[in-house]
Amino acid sequence: MKAVRLHEVGGPQNLRIEEIEPPVPAAGETLVRIRAAAFNRRDVFITQGLYPGIALPRTLGSDGAGFDPKSETEVVIDPMLGWGGNPHLWAGDASILGMPHDGTFAQYVAVPTANVYPKPAHLTMEEAGAIPLAGLTAYRATFTRGQLEAGETVLIPGIGGGVQTFVLLFAKAVGARTIVTSGTQAKLDRARALGADVTINYADPEWHKQIKRGEVDLVVDSSGGDTLNKALGLLRPGGRAVLYGGTRLESTIRIFPIFWNHLDIRGTSMGSPEDFRGMLDFVTKHEIRPVVDHVYAMDEVVTAAERMAAAEQFGKIVLTIP
Amino acid sequence: MKAVRLHEVGGPQNLRIEEIEPPVPAAGETLVRIRAAAFNRRDVFITQGLYPGIALPRTLGSDGAGFDPKSETEVVIDPMLGWGGNPHLWAGDASILGMPHDGTFAQYVAVPTANVYPKPAHLTMEEAGAIPLAGLTAYRATFTRGQLEAGETVLIPGIGGGVQTFVLLFAKAVGARTIVTSGTQAKLDRARALGADVTINYADPEWHKQIKRGEVDLVVDSSGGDTLNKALGLLRPGGRAVLYGGTRLESTIRIFPIFWNHLDIRGTSMGSPEDFRGMLDFVTKHEIRPVVDHVYAMDEVVTAAERMAAAEQFGKIVLTIP
Repeated sequence: MKAVRLHEVGGPQNLRIEEIEPPVPAAGETLVRIRAAAFNRRDVFITQGLYPGIALPRTLGSDGAGFDPKSETEVVIDPMLGWGGNPHLWAGDASILGMPHDGTFAQYVAVPTANVYPKPAHLTMEEAGAIPLAGLTAYRATFTRGQLEAGETVLIPGIGGGVQTFVLLFAKAVGARTIVTSGTQAKLDRARALGADVTINYADPEWHKQIKRGEVDLVVDSSGGDTLNKALGLLRPGGRAVLYGGTRLESTIRIFPIFWNHLDIRGTSMGSPEDFRGMLDFVTKHEIRPVVDHVYAMDEVVTAAERMAAAEQFGKIVLTIP
Repeated sequence: MKAVRLHEVGGPQNLRIEEIEPPVPAAGETLVRIRAAAFNRRDVFITQGLYPGIALPRTLGSDGAGFDPKSETEVVIDPMLGWGGNPHLWAGDASILGMPHDGTFAQYVAVPTANVYPKPAHLTMEEAGAIPLAGLTAYRATFTRGQLEAGETVLIPGIGGGVQTFVLLFAKAVGARTIVTSGTQAKLDRARALGADVTINYADPEWHKQIKRGEVDLVVDSSGGDTLNKALGLLRPGGRAVLYGGTRLESTIRIFPIFWNHLDIRGTSMGSPEDFRGMLDFVTKHEIRPVVDHVYAMDEVVTAAERMAAAEQFGKIVLTIP
């Protein structure tokens, strides 16, 4: 079968399409014939050596949709492997599809049968392949951890990446008010077209002054740095900040608003099986279509990965698998 | 009546004992004859002008125990005024006894009758007067927000202040394991005598390496700064950090442990009426006696406040009211 393999770290250009043996599913696993996959930052970080526990060579890719040849159904894969029985927290030996387990950038992938879900009927294969990791992360961040409700205001800093575009779609679907920021006017325009209520260009260092203090119920952030500190200062008393990543590795935060305003800062990574099922049900019920930035053929994988590395995208970068 | 009054900010030495008219209780208020009061950092911050909304002259003091002349019972006062009906959060117009409302450093104070509770029978008047603000803050931080359970390990940085000594006593009472830090060996010895399982001197900048990563379920902190960042790195996956203050106004924190370990950082200030009642019940059930650092007579109030300002105390600094 054809697979996108990484033999040594060094950047996206090290990704190679190779002919390898298809995986042999173990007991309790299903062999899925992948037709569409999608990129996450994680895939780029792995090519750059910026991820814990890299073991090479490996087939990358966490997101995939395709066919289950046995049941002859269209399926989508939950990339969270071995979350375990605690809905609050993954198990110590949990991992994410695509490292160290061979991933979805291939014609076949073997995954635990419990991770294989029917594809929502309203989605194309490319759309379904764009959903898993970012949709799961966004769903847990927005609802399970963020407890966003209709009528609340959510701040979504740095719109453009997969998770943030899902947070925007999910928040609009439940009737929340959304404030998005970006340094790129084109991304703000795209967000506005998707329903963002307020769009702010953070090229202005005083961007946060365009938001009233106390106006924000929830911020869903992966920026860290000064963005997080400013966002905490905008939260209403009792407000929540959910962090699912840190583009800036550190943040210098003022302590006073946290205790005086009874704030919660909640970390989250990926999501439980209940979250994945909840996300698919939510996407189905609200007929949500993921924002697809660009669809590349498998043999354009380096171009696709370089677009991801440059953070130029708005929405998901999809790879079709022949 | 005699009252400790502040006419202008400038430090503890500006506190004066004066003869003023006793307050006249409004409808729904009770006039309490105070016999013991206690200091909190807040009182010192007010004398230094480091508190929001200072209006002078004012009788200071949040903590008080004494008699209700009408019912002829010994009572203790909940210093949280107007928390409101939401157990998660104080109301926008909530305040704390002692600023802007005249406080407990006086022979009489008028407070809402709902804030007057029977004094736990096992406590002396001085002990009861030492409990309210710090006991309430510690109870909410440890249990309502911190959800500490038997068998868990709690890190208590900077033992010595009122709240931290209550956290230690409360944690031991429920069967938790306690790790305390201080820069003063004498305070560590006192904490050990109170049941602290592990004592660490943070004069060693590598103090955190004496604790295994993942060994801590909960940290209750008011230090901020580097202490908070180090504590976050010690929490087990799913662990909690509760912040009730910030001696260092800022903290530079690493974002990775927060999202990767699914951590919660929870801010808290004071507590609800349910928390105060729960704290008194807990203190009564476990026959907890607060740690009293020193008892001063009312006319030694400046000396008492200066000891508080110097952070030399271990436990509460009490003022007897003649």
